[in-house]
Amino acid sequence: MDDALNAFVPGPRCTIQGKAGGALDGLSFAVKDLIDIAGVPTGGGNPDWQRAHPIPESHAWIVDRLLQAGAGVIGKTATDEVSLGILGENPYTGTPINPRAPNRVPGGSSSGSASAVAGGVCDFALGTDTGGSVRVPASFCGLYGIRPTHGRIDFSGITRQAPSSDTVGWFARDGATFARVGEAVFGAALPDHLPTRLVVAIDAFGFADENVRHALEPMVDRLRKLIGHSREEILAPPGLSVWQWAQRVGQSSEAWATFQPWIDQWNPRFAFGVASGLVMGSSFTSHDRSRAALMRIEAKARMRQLLPAGTILCLPTTPFPAPKLGLSISALAHPRDRISCLTSHGGLTGVPQVNLPGAIVDGAPVGLSIIGGGGADLDLLAVARAMDAA
Amino acid sequence: MDDALNAFVPGPRCTIQGKAGGALDGLSFAVKDLIDIAGVPTGGGNPDWQRAHPIPESHAWIVDRLLQAGAGVIGKTATDEVSLGILGENPYTGTPINPRAPNRVPGGSSSGSASAVAGGVCDFALGTDTGGSVRVPASFCGLYGIRPTHGRIDFSGITRQAPSSDTVGWFARDGATFARVGEAVFGAALPDHLPTRLVVAIDAFGFADENVRHALEPMVDRLRKLIGHSREEILAPPGLSVWQWAQRVGQSSEAWATFQPWIDQWNPRFAFGVASGLVMGSSFTSHDRSRAALMRIEAKARMRQLLPAGTILCLPTTPFPAPKLGLSISALAHPRDRISCLTSHGGLTGVPQVNLPGAIVDGAPVGLSIIGGGGADLDLLAVARAMDAA
Repeated sequence: MDDALNAFVPGPRCTIQGKAGGALDGLSFAVKDLIDIAGVPTGGGNPDWQRAHPIPESHAWIVDRLLQAGAGVIGKTATDEVSLGILGENPYTGTPINPRAPNRVPGGSSSGSASAVAGGVCDFALGTDTGGSVRVPASFCGLYGIRPTHGRIDFSGITRQAPSSDTVGWFARDGATFARVGEAVFGAALPDHLPTRLVVAIDAFGFADENVRHALEPMVDRLRKLIGHSREEILAPPGLSVWQWAQRVGQSSEAWATFQPWIDQWNPRFAFGVASGLVMGSSFTSHDRSRAALMRIEAKARMRQLLPAGTILCLPTTPFPAPKLGLSISALAHPRDRISCLTSHGGLTGVPQVNLPGAIVDGAPVGLSIIGGGGADLDLLAVARAMDAA
Repeated sequence: MDDALNAFVPGPRCTIQGKAGGALDGLSFAVKDLIDIAGVPTGGGNPDWQRAHPIPESHAWIVDRLLQAGAGVIGKTATDEVSLGILGENPYTGTPINPRAPNRVPGGSSSGSASAVAGGVCDFALGTDTGGSVRVPASFCGLYGIRPTHGRIDFSGITRQAPSSDTVGWFARDGATFARVGEAVFGAALPDHLPTRLVVAIDAFGFADENVRHALEPMVDRLRKLIGHSREEILAPPGLSVWQWAQRVGQSSEAWATFQPWIDQWNPRFAFGVASGLVMGSSFTSHDRSRAALMRIEAKARMRQLLPAGTILCLPTTPFPAPKLGLSISALAHPRDRISCLTSHGGLTGVPQVNLPGAIVDGAPVGLSIIGGGGADLDLLAVARAMDAA
């Protein structure tokens, strides 16, 4: 099949029909190549992952769930190497095109899934999000995207990175499809009424570029009208950069623990930027990890306090739209760190988050995120659907 | 052409006839793929090196010199990625076969050159040696191999790694051919008489495996008979491991400085072990580098004191024969460090060194090295020829 977006993995396209008559009958979806499909190698975006791992014998839980609900698989999509990346660049399979801003990166690591949905190739697509891998490409490609509550969706059959932060989510172009997938995945209908209180994370807004703050203002106003009562609060009292540090230490230490046995045995090939991140993950001290773990407890408590039932919080998903293609490692280092300052709360605290598309800066999309307390996934999907219909 | 040894780079074989009637007329040689041949891409053993560098317009000085002397090029040979490696493993072009021990690595980084000569594919082959990249594969493949005096041979047209340690040398199967190439390269005849004093580096012998010490004893005895007067001395008074540290800091810091602009712009792919070594090179402090530079001054002075004109020194080239194929990164870490304890004096002090083949341990070759003072290259070649004839 033609793949003008370079969104799919090379080779024959894997397709599976969904069960007839289900709630998602007629919808097509793509599957990030870190998620198992029975009988199909899981490539992981790295040439030495597939050869070190057996071909899966069964579908990942979520793939099976969606097939049972009637949706059909149309292929497996490109990812940053073993999910380690936030920009979508991959020298082995190439960088998928961002259909909404072709001279910019698509975002990652669920790059091909975002590209395929934004390009209209399928109705929705699965991604994983450990440190921002659904939220960032959703923002950069102008899509609805969800990072669900950590631990709520069965993760079996999905390649792990940092287990205490790993989640599996999805992208869609419209709020109705986006919410419908959630009802099938969670096995529950959207709630009858929307949340009633909105918190605006003023530190996160202050962290974004000025033109992003301005571009998101009308979306925040619409959200205020939809929800009603709103107030401003600090998201991270110790500072977004402190939470970013804590999540970097914890996530990259866990990632090193996950991949170290494979790396040791196979000496796999990586883009230098990926390898150097893994080396960083191997270098933190137990003192660093202990401090990061304490900060995580405080961050989780902060989220519980900010987000009682019925309350959601909003913030810019990314501090700017997608960076241009072809920038050097050093030119991208600071932007990557800035992005993770706005995403680290997710892996750190486990709360669900949804990206709402709608704003444009310099001709490229940038999204507004909403966050709920743990388990509030369906509330966020209801808000997304209502915002799209409003 | 067939390449059963996997010694040559993929693609059409580059061949050039030598000038008729020269001193090396009729000899064939192979060229490590870090050394320029006009009109042929220099691959550097890494898929992202070639695309970032123009096709050379002229031969490296030493290639031109050898062609003018009548030797003919038969192809370009595999190398560890951008010369960063000592074992000869390369996931992009594959590991060349060690014809003398097919279940073991060939040694690197001049892996393909050593493999091709040991396999009888050509009469001699060019390699580079910064931290041991000629000496180690010569030991592992049972070949004569020279690391010349640093700075004596024009390095133009050769990919640099750490300029203050980089040298270009060659391999041969027999002492006569090995010495003949040296006469052509240096433009001078071998000296009429051999050195008259032999120093045995007892710390270096103590560092080798016991079976290697025993296997090298008959060679040392033959050397004693050839040279005459001998005495035992410590090579590195502060310890071989201290010299190894100093060379690691200096060489890998220089290598990082050399490759950093390319890495930053291209984010090249590397085997993890190569990338992590580059990251290590980026991490030393100026305090580390200053200490290493002071140790280098002392090491050079030690070599001048040990090696007046007419004196050569001998030591095991490697502490053991080639490691088996397929070992993990962690299983190879300590062996790599041990090898560099016996090779670091070369890059640190710049003196010339020749590997003499002849010993066998566990069915695999291991070599004895001779070292002379700076500029004593031809004396070492004369000893090699005499040892082979004896």
